[in-house]
Amino acid sequence: MQVNHRITLAARPVNRPVQPSDFAHDAKPIPEPGAGEVLLRTLYLSLDPYMRGRMSEAKSYAQPTQIGDVMVGEVVAEVASSNDPSLVPGDTVLARLGWQEYGVMPAKGLIKVDGKAASLSHYLGVLGMPGMTAYFALLDIGKPKPGQTVLVSAASGAVGQVVGQIAKLKGCRVIGIAGGARKCEYVTDELGFDAAVDYRGKDTAALVAELATLAPHGIDVYFDNVGGIIHDAAMASLAMYARIIIVGAVAIYDRLETQDTGVRWMRQILAKRARMEGFLVFDYDARRAEFLADMTAWLRGGLIKYREDVAEGLDRTPEAFIGMLAGKNLGKQLIHVASPVGR
Amino acid sequence: MQVNHRITLAARPVNRPVQPSDFAHDAKPIPEPGAGEVLLRTLYLSLDPYMRGRMSEAKSYAQPTQIGDVMVGEVVAEVASSNDPSLVPGDTVLARLGWQEYGVMPAKGLIKVDGKAASLSHYLGVLGMPGMTAYFALLDIGKPKPGQTVLVSAASGAVGQVVGQIAKLKGCRVIGIAGGARKCEYVTDELGFDAAVDYRGKDTAALVAELATLAPHGIDVYFDNVGGIIHDAAMASLAMYARIIIVGAVAIYDRLETQDTGVRWMRQILAKRARMEGFLVFDYDARRAEFLADMTAWLRGGLIKYREDVAEGLDRTPEAFIGMLAGKNLGKQLIHVASPVGR
Repeated sequence: MQVNHRITLAARPVNRPVQPSDFAHDAKPIPEPGAGEVLLRTLYLSLDPYMRGRMSEAKSYAQPTQIGDVMVGEVVAEVASSNDPSLVPGDTVLARLGWQEYGVMPAKGLIKVDGKAASLSHYLGVLGMPGMTAYFALLDIGKPKPGQTVLVSAASGAVGQVVGQIAKLKGCRVIGIAGGARKCEYVTDELGFDAAVDYRGKDTAALVAELATLAPHGIDVYFDNVGGIIHDAAMASLAMYARIIIVGAVAIYDRLETQDTGVRWMRQILAKRARMEGFLVFDYDARRAEFLADMTAWLRGGLIKYREDVAEGLDRTPEAFIGMLAGKNLGKQLIHVASPVGR
Repeated sequence: MQVNHRITLAARPVNRPVQPSDFAHDAKPIPEPGAGEVLLRTLYLSLDPYMRGRMSEAKSYAQPTQIGDVMVGEVVAEVASSNDPSLVPGDTVLARLGWQEYGVMPAKGLIKVDGKAASLSHYLGVLGMPGMTAYFALLDIGKPKPGQTVLVSAASGAVGQVVGQIAKLKGCRVIGIAGGARKCEYVTDELGFDAAVDYRGKDTAALVAELATLAPHGIDVYFDNVGGIIHDAAMASLAMYARIIIVGAVAIYDRLETQDTGVRWMRQILAKRARMEGFLVFDYDARRAEFLADMTAWLRGGLIKYREDVAEGLDRTPEAFIGMLAGKNLGKQLIHVASPVGR
């Protein structure tokens, strides 16, 4: 008998890094779809930093995952069986199925994706939530203008690599911040960023000094994926009327239950008339088509390159997730769970 | 012989409150205007929190005042003699003459003000820089919508009292934060704010609890004149998509040379998709007419009330300035230096 392998939350990491024992692996019977529902088989699972937040009970924009519940996550799935006329077996869809091999969902609300138009995995990245985050956060909040300097942290990640390339398309000078020479070379040599800063082993002052050389007129747009001292270095380096987009805070994810304290930048915000704004991609669901039109064209034209870091098999999900939080991946972190069977 | 009494910067207050010995009083010969210049006699001197910043060498948006130099400041002055056809003795103008009784300025660039249209002192307040700050920062950055909740700190001050009243005109619910019962009664009973919070003797948690009662749906616009723990209380109380306007940081002016550290609100900014933006009124010089049209009409219609706290005589400037930084004034702090002589 086939079973549904799942990964659930076993323990909350409180003010410490995530460890493998925070997750439990189990196997349950494959569920049966009811009327209007479909049974989905996970093909690719997306791993994203926000999942760290769901493991915590610290106040956030979303409810925490409960102990014993399947970890949340977006997947590209294949319809295995369908009780709804809108979907047939073999169709591929986007779904919030979480860290498991199978799941039942109402057919209504599932977004069909076309494996012929683009690699299925891309719908979890450059054509999915990370791509949309890069696109709307940079363009709508950052409002980069030709000739301006855009700084992006976690530059080789799922969001960062797209941010930098869109900024280049818009005529900006782009500096990426990443951990390690390999990622820095990737964003300059393969993605065409103008410069990269390797943050490893550097304190705020060293980062500020490096930014002063690379961006003598200051940073016009800072795309903040990480928080922490990289945030500080960017804030100390702002140009007049700079925009700071707060998208994530990976640097402080190991101490989510502790109040984040440190340098406060209000005097700098005042002196530079800077604007700092938080961004969550869910606010832009209604504008998905606008994003897809641009991004699909850019991908087709070879204007946006995109790299994935794919681990094989659901079992490797905790290891890959922990690695991603530590910055070990290069490109969008995915799990290849299964290959399509077809109809 | 008539002389020009002046007050100069004698010592920099480094990480401590301003004290009277930071200023020196002297008397110099009244200067002679050259070609195209006018001799001005100060009538009213404006005292504003930003002057504290100019006493410090800490990095800011403007150069510090040098030791021995006259303290900077806006005045309403009367033209005593003129070598330029555009101004005649008896004309009244706005000028950045500083803390002194007389000064020579190029006629070009001086803004004529009409004592018949409004009280001359108003051009330093509700019709001047503080009024413009309230108007553009609230409307352009805060973008308050009818029914939303606006919180303003230093609520009875030169800027705060105008902010709250404009917000009321725009259909908002307005909460003021001020120090002491007298100021709180002023903003509710005289200015028509919906509520006031007396911050004295309260910590962040107590302020947050009070705001939760007064604004159960959260703060949509926070007009931040002060920084410090009032900033924290406001940030902890934001509604979704809140706007925070950073206009001043009086609460930390006694430690300008120390890096401002404390709670960092990036996770809250992200969760609430809040926008925090710095504001300096000089950026809006070109839109002065727009402001004056609205504000003059509102004043004439009795829609905006405005209170001044006027000390008598240049000699009392240091005392009044130190008092203002400690929150002792109620309303816009001014010094009445001299009365007009006329032409």
